[in-house]
Amino acid sequence: MYGSVFIENDPFSPITYLYDVSDILYRGKSSYQEIMILNSPYFGKMLVLDGVVQLTEKDEFFYHEMLAHVVLHAHVNPKTVLIIGGGDGGTLREVLKHKLVEKVQLVEIDREVIEVSKRFFPELTIGFADKRAELIEMDGVSYIKQTKCKYDVVIVDSTDPVGPAEGLFTEQFFNGVRGILNNEGIFVTQTESLHFHRQFVMDTQIKLRALFEIVGLYSAPVATYAGNWWTFSIASKKYPVKKPNRNQEVITKYYDKQVHRSAFLTDNLYQKLLNNTLDW
Amino acid sequence: MYGSVFIENDPFSPITYLYDVSDILYRGKSSYQEIMILNSPYFGKMLVLDGVVQLTEKDEFFYHEMLAHVVLHAHVNPKTVLIIGGGDGGTLREVLKHKLVEKVQLVEIDREVIEVSKRFFPELTIGFADKRAELIEMDGVSYIKQTKCKYDVVIVDSTDPVGPAEGLFTEQFFNGVRGILNNEGIFVTQTESLHFHRQFVMDTQIKLRALFEIVGLYSAPVATYAGNWWTFSIASKKYPVKKPNRNQEVITKYYDKQVHRSAFLTDNLYQKLLNNTLDW
Repeated sequence: MYGSVFIENDPFSPITYLYDVSDILYRGKSSYQEIMILNSPYFGKMLVLDGVVQLTEKDEFFYHEMLAHVVLHAHVNPKTVLIIGGGDGGTLREVLKHKLVEKVQLVEIDREVIEVSKRFFPELTIGFADKRAELIEMDGVSYIKQTKCKYDVVIVDSTDPVGPAEGLFTEQFFNGVRGILNNEGIFVTQTESLHFHRQFVMDTQIKLRALFEIVGLYSAPVATYAGNWWTFSIASKKYPVKKPNRNQEVITKYYDKQVHRSAFLTDNLYQKLLNNTLDW
Repeated sequence: MYGSVFIENDPFSPITYLYDVSDILYRGKSSYQEIMILNSPYFGKMLVLDGVVQLTEKDEFFYHEMLAHVVLHAHVNPKTVLIIGGGDGGTLREVLKHKLVEKVQLVEIDREVIEVSKRFFPELTIGFADKRAELIEMDGVSYIKQTKCKYDVVIVDSTDPVGPAEGLFTEQFFNGVRGILNNEGIFVTQTESLHFHRQFVMDTQIKLRALFEIVGLYSAPVATYAGNWWTFSIASKKYPVKKPNRNQEVITKYYDKQVHRSAFLTDNLYQKLLNNTLDW
């Protein structure tokens, strides 16, 4: 932090992003990470974990809508949802927009992220007060191993796949997720930028394809995530995922049924990605 | 330029991009702008004009393919093409891949950009040696006013819409372009990021819709352009533009017929953009 400029510290990005900020509203250290809330004239309040921007008030909905609504519209009748991570509440807020959803459990390792988010992002964290929501303070890998619950939808809303989040992208973890999904269950996870983390995207897709009947890759433009062109990997036991399988009943800023379809990587590029023959 | 870090100087971006660079390969001043060639370990050679990254070896094809091939596949029989700007040669290279194209004129105000590009980007500038290509050293606004030629396709490949490029986005200019297009002609121009320059995108669309029968907006992910989610505005006298109107015969890294379709902004978001009711 130098004067009124915040220099992002993202070791996985070949471009470093620099933000004008007017205030540091909060700075603290939890047991797991450094948490900062910055105020940006353009982006509004920003949540920063270990020096990396996790969300901004201005554009968080691109990520949260696309993480939640593609999987929830691919499922015909999603009643039970598990969110792993997502302590800022944004994904929970989107999931709870679905009236079909009866129960959402959110497994977050870092209670402080939730507390700080509640304080600075009241609009993102409204879901925590919903009767259908239950908070479990635990790391996602351990939870998957021990739970006896089954879910229609599992969503991983994680930080970059290093440190605490690394375990959320292993074959073992994906297999565990499969085990706690109902027979018609669907899983989705954020998988970084197709520009800057292609090997990671490819590896994740290959792991999921070894375990699930139907696997897809789609993206959304998120200006505050390095590389933009942010990807989501979705894996389904039964339902096709490239188009909604029920009508949209939720109000959104970006997601709609046409966005759902056009967000998926085209067949040609997807095959090349899997074969590692993309010419870039 | 501080040590081995290049700090981009883009007054229109709320995020400043910072690049690791290993060398400054060239630095000079033409009559119009400062020209730099930098070497980046990740992006390869980079062309920088007045402090703003214009292209990198690694990702230039996203922009150049999407600027050239959407319009050229929307036209059924594009024989004559005018490119305004594009002195780096990338768009010319893509246009010349089309065997139907018999003649391409490239109107570039700054000869030095061409010379420096020829020296440092031989793969981008191969088109200048093609017999079908003709270079006209002039500013695009003046050329449009005085030419007696007619074209099937007009492409504006400009820098940001300030200074020299500002005149390429006025209603008067667009009307001039319409005047030099054949009855089946199509026009396309780059129109900045939908994240960071939405007002500009909207204004341009509205100007074009007042003049052309069919107008569309599509995008491509370009990590090295601020805001990514880079837009292109396309305006046609006769042919629909949202899908290719002939088979693809050109070899590409990113563009294909499915990319062509999915790149267009969805109907819902497009209407909201025009009505200025996007909720972000």
